[in-house]
Amino acid sequence: MAKNLPRTMKAIGLYKYLPISDPNSLLDIEIGLPKLQKNDVLIEVKAISVNPIDTKQRAPKPVIETTPRILGWDGAGTVIKNGEKSNIFNVGDEVIFTGDLRRSGCNAQYVALNEFLVGPKPKNLTFEQSAAMPLTAVTAYESLFERLLLSNKDAGKSILVINSAGGVGSVATQIASNLGLKVIGTASRKETIDFSLSHGANIVLNHKNDLFPQLADNGYENGVDYILVNYDPYPYWDTIMQVIKPQGKICLIVDSSGLVDLKPLKDKSVTLASESMLTKIKYNTEDLFKHHEMLKEISKMLDNGQLKTTLNKILTPINAVNLKEAHKILEEKTSIGKIVLTGF
Amino acid sequence: MAKNLPRTMKAIGLYKYLPISDPNSLLDIEIGLPKLQKNDVLIEVKAISVNPIDTKQRAPKPVIETTPRILGWDGAGTVIKNGEKSNIFNVGDEVIFTGDLRRSGCNAQYVALNEFLVGPKPKNLTFEQSAAMPLTAVTAYESLFERLLLSNKDAGKSILVINSAGGVGSVATQIASNLGLKVIGTASRKETIDFSLSHGANIVLNHKNDLFPQLADNGYENGVDYILVNYDPYPYWDTIMQVIKPQGKICLIVDSSGLVDLKPLKDKSVTLASESMLTKIKYNTEDLFKHHEMLKEISKMLDNGQLKTTLNKILTPINAVNLKEAHKILEEKTSIGKIVLTGF
Repeated sequence: MAKNLPRTMKAIGLYKYLPISDPNSLLDIEIGLPKLQKNDVLIEVKAISVNPIDTKQRAPKPVIETTPRILGWDGAGTVIKNGEKSNIFNVGDEVIFTGDLRRSGCNAQYVALNEFLVGPKPKNLTFEQSAAMPLTAVTAYESLFERLLLSNKDAGKSILVINSAGGVGSVATQIASNLGLKVIGTASRKETIDFSLSHGANIVLNHKNDLFPQLADNGYENGVDYILVNYDPYPYWDTIMQVIKPQGKICLIVDSSGLVDLKPLKDKSVTLASESMLTKIKYNTEDLFKHHEMLKEISKMLDNGQLKTTLNKILTPINAVNLKEAHKILEEKTSIGKIVLTGF
Repeated sequence: MAKNLPRTMKAIGLYKYLPISDPNSLLDIEIGLPKLQKNDVLIEVKAISVNPIDTKQRAPKPVIETTPRILGWDGAGTVIKNGEKSNIFNVGDEVIFTGDLRRSGCNAQYVALNEFLVGPKPKNLTFEQSAAMPLTAVTAYESLFERLLLSNKDAGKSILVINSAGGVGSVATQIASNLGLKVIGTASRKETIDFSLSHGANIVLNHKNDLFPQLADNGYENGVDYILVNYDPYPYWDTIMQVIKPQGKICLIVDSSGLVDLKPLKDKSVTLASESMLTKIKYNTEDLFKHHEMLKEISKMLDNGQLKTTLNKILTPINAVNLKEAHKILEEKTSIGKIVLTGF
């Protein structure tokens, strides 16, 4: 039974796309509850996580919204209502979720989402620990299993995870390590190096310096089998072309800031995959149901300890002041793991 | 028993890298026989095939060779001697072979090759029909099975083969068609369209016109699952980004003449693989033995009719005049299937 729903809810939204230093870049607002589509669940939001996709969507541009834009595509909460044809979850189920960029996000007390973008919350984790995970874990999962096509058969092979202390990097490090791969992370500060080692990296190189000599010093003078680039690939292009092994595979999750030369790919017959967890959602692909299955699997791995939450900072409550603070940290690109906001 | 070998052999070689219109671009010469390395077989060359790699290697550049450079990495012949540790073939075996760019090629009466670059000649084909196939068939095979990772499970899916009447295109068309894929070829002249249809293309689009509306007219308005680009991808970049399906895979076998924007890859989580049949050879990869296995499989498919030779033109004998003619046709980019030279 759905509880009686309020007519309005608190949310953090924007009308103008402004620098985060501008007081109006994100605003506390009161708006109507989102409308349920037939395959949706309505979720009462308990904790939200902030990702680079939020800051990219909020980035300054000359657009004015007539209804407030609500960001946020990552969090945890409780199902409070089912859409007409939604039947995976029951009212009262505790869940984790990602989101759909074309719809209002979860920086609000309630969010409506296609049930395939929702999975069970790990029982042994808090809402905050859980909220840190969905978007980055799905991205890491798709990168490793659907793009690089890793499996247990790859045990013993090597993967270079560039920016391994970030959100996706620290989940990918854990999953690759569980598969038995040698994980070579990259970071630059003591805290990020330690964070990455604690998530299963075998070694962590300093990405402020040239990576090739560091790889050679660690016995990888013949290169690595796989590379996951959790950063603009443009400044790394020559390096990744140099250190990938013949017939190796590279996965990019961040847009390149410049045009690239594809020639070096051919000499080594390299495969370059690009990953966005939004693809299945935006194009409503036939395998969209796998998004739900991945969230279920991720939840199980978090419960049985195969995966640790990458939560590193909690801000409370969920309001414009704290959300601006989180965006600011992300834009400075110095964050470690994930930032979560909790409580209204 | 090896027959008595002559001390010298006929070959076609070059000292200077000149336009094909220059009489000295390729010369009839008489040189010593190639030296056998321990894993080599010595092959008496019966027929050779010409590929874009030959014209690229011969392309004008300010380099002068002190010993003549012999091109040619594709052909058929008879094993006449084994290297110390070579044991796959017996003297007298009829074989097909590719080649190693770092060594003297097969535009000569004899060629020495690592035995992994050699496979059995199809019994039901002539030397000429056989010589047309090794390099393009290995490239097509690796493109489809090792880069695009196609299998019988992909029956019913769609593959766009750009330039489907060329050497690799016409083999790839046959293999993809055998797997049950819908093959959409591209060509521009009546002869090339017919050639492509006769090799199994379901439809052939005109690559002189925009491909997207033609795909839409044929029921592919939502794009294709796979693309094999047997042409400079640069002028096709926007088109292939537009017509590839979400999570689709593209394989390139030709270098891009310009820098490209990787951004569109991410929106659809596209995988872009690059294929060169020289990679395993140049880097002496652990799976180099697969090169031999592929040649064996290709030979079997040619014998049992799963694959037809793409031989389209025979020039005889193997001499500088005919080789220049073949290079000239390839450089004009109007060739259909393969050109083979035969007989000394």
